Amino acid sequence: MCPSRLVLEHVTSRWGVLILIALLERSYRFSELRREIGGVSEKMLTQTLQTLERDGFVHRDAKPVIPPRVDYSLTELGTEAARQVSELGRWTERRVPEVEKARKAYDEARTARD
Amino acid sequence: MCPSRLVLEHVTSRWGVLILIALLERSYRFSELRREIGGVSEKMLTQTLQTLERDGFVHRDAKPVIPPRVDYSLTELGTEAARQVSELGRWTERRVPEVEKARKAYDEARTARD
Repeated sequence: MCPSRLVLEHVTSRWGVLILIALLERSYRFSELRREIGGVSEKMLTQTLQTLERDGFVHRDAKPVIPPRVDYSLTELGTEAARQVSELGRWTERRVPEVEKARKAYDEARTARD
Repeated sequence: MCPSRLVLEHVTSRWGVLILIALLERSYRFSELRREIGGVSEKMLTQTLQTLERDGFVHRDAKPVIPPRVDYSLTELGTEAARQVSELGRWTERRVPEVEKARKAYDEARTARD
């Protein structure tokens, strides 16, 4: 697989998309981020954050305090990616009525045919 | 799950992304599209095309000829989505060197720590 396709998969992965959009607003601690996103397991959130950190999109800041505190934020590169993904998310929100209309037409055509 | 999140998942799904980018260039027949994308099973391509058709992004044109001929193309709505996804793809291509640099630094830091 070509390298850019793999990077694109990370940026557009199910949880990657939602992490980037959330972090565009502000930095988050792990548990906060998990609540904000909703429906993501600890394991999947950890894995996706690691992938995005390794790609240079997310910065992980582990503060040497007790109890340990880890903050996640976007790097400059991550901010660029997140802006585009977030724009796509906003476009999607605006287009939901059209998508719902299309689905209704599709389902009705199927019912009529069957 | 809120409706726009599901639509965003379709648009950014692994094969959805690549289908939208391919169809932005021109319409494709099923087998052509499968070759163009590469690495996708017939089943996954069929499913993803159906999802995108139902959402109103892809138009399926079954011509009444022998042998049967089916062409897939983008609707207006699909073209709007595909333009954004394609822009993200081009951005990703330009940023691959930075991502590779970040990965190298990440892996070296891990090796040093272990």
